[in-house]
Amino acid sequence: MRADVQFLPRKVSAKGAGGKVFVVIDALRATTTIIEALSNGCAEVIPVVTVDEAFDLAKKSSREDTLIGGERGGFKVDGFDLGNSPREYRREIVLGKKVILTTTDGTKAFHWVGACEHVLVGAFTNARAVVQRCIALGADPVMVPAGKKGKFSLEDTVCGGMMIDLLEKMGVGLTDAARAAGTLYKAFHNDLLEMARISEHGQNLIQRGFEEDLGFCVQTNVSSLVPVFREGSVSLD
Amino acid sequence: MRADVQFLPRKVSAKGAGGKVFVVIDALRATTTIIEALSNGCAEVIPVVTVDEAFDLAKKSSREDTLIGGERGGFKVDGFDLGNSPREYRREIVLGKKVILTTTDGTKAFHWVGACEHVLVGAFTNARAVVQRCIALGADPVMVPAGKKGKFSLEDTVCGGMMIDLLEKMGVGLTDAARAAGTLYKAFHNDLLEMARISEHGQNLIQRGFEEDLGFCVQTNVSSLVPVFREGSVSLD
Repeated sequence: MRADVQFLPRKVSAKGAGGKVFVVIDALRATTTIIEALSNGCAEVIPVVTVDEAFDLAKKSSREDTLIGGERGGFKVDGFDLGNSPREYRREIVLGKKVILTTTDGTKAFHWVGACEHVLVGAFTNARAVVQRCIALGADPVMVPAGKKGKFSLEDTVCGGMMIDLLEKMGVGLTDAARAAGTLYKAFHNDLLEMARISEHGQNLIQRGFEEDLGFCVQTNVSSLVPVFREGSVSLD
Repeated sequence: MRADVQFLPRKVSAKGAGGKVFVVIDALRATTTIIEALSNGCAEVIPVVTVDEAFDLAKKSSREDTLIGGERGGFKVDGFDLGNSPREYRREIVLGKKVILTTTDGTKAFHWVGACEHVLVGAFTNARAVVQRCIALGADPVMVPAGKKGKFSLEDTVCGGMMIDLLEKMGVGLTDAARAAGTLYKAFHNDLLEMARISEHGQNLIQRGFEEDLGFCVQTNVSSLVPVFREGSVSLD
């Protein structure tokens, strides 16, 4: 078993995915939000790439069972029910509902790995549970940090590095990329909030008034849930 | 001024290169070899992508002034004068000569940035000199680790991180990617040889009998030369 990290966004073909499990990570905030929504009883999350797709899909759904969530430029889109803050996805709002979600980076990442058999949803909040699921699957784990507009993002890579660090302690071998991510996690693990604050995306969120989300998103191992992405939908398997 | 690291191989358009200086890094071994060759009086190095290109270009050149060097699978190619070990590029061999060089990753990286105005050649051996040149140019430095067959390579990123660390100390701002590379360098800087030894590429080189090259390639700041890539050729400007 060997763990890898896909440092930058790129599409994975089904052919290249054999024997691997992909972990999509957009710690600030999309995957943390998905985990929080499912923790609060949301039935499923449908990640879509564009705002138009979100509205189109909502039209085809029963409006009373469906919420549209997500962001552009960090803010809730006009006409959406929810933004992309995990703190909005409370039980009284999402229980039993389907959420159609579109965000700048995170929901795209699902489409890079859409053809793959095993795709999990990871964040700081469920890192240990994700690692345990990878081990149980017996497949080579590949972390997929969502990045920021096609570029490297510190917080997603550090989050992948947290999972790598756990895998390494279990004796799993590492690629160079995995070793680098694990080393980054070790460098920042004593103050993940500060890491999130100095990251480019963290800076943007603070400027837009979402500073509280940073603290929420760097909580570690508070959830034992491992959402699974399959056939366009994220649910608890 | 803001420093960046391009984590994975990708082509840079001239349009996207305005106000930037790109530093191509293939620490194990191509850029270290280029710096060593030029230090020993080699007139110029022509990086080409394929073995066929190397032979074709050599045919068009005066054979007595021209050497063909490089590797495939780490080893010298049949019919080449030199491999890709910097230790081969001694003064008595390269003085006054033109070297046509093709390697698996390093020489490709020059072609990603071939359209850009400012392209420098960096390695551990000339890191400080490269940083000083970047500052003198007043352009935003972008480190371009060559990677390994399109994937992340630890040693090239750590080498870029060494330059980032120097730039940060001079007050230059950092992108997330630059911050990550600088953090990686700090994690490994006490034992760069061990970092090279555990890297995937280092492991390959050790298995192929090139262990001595690792020690050569992680010497820091032993050269004050900054080779420049321009119009398909690397020289000392």
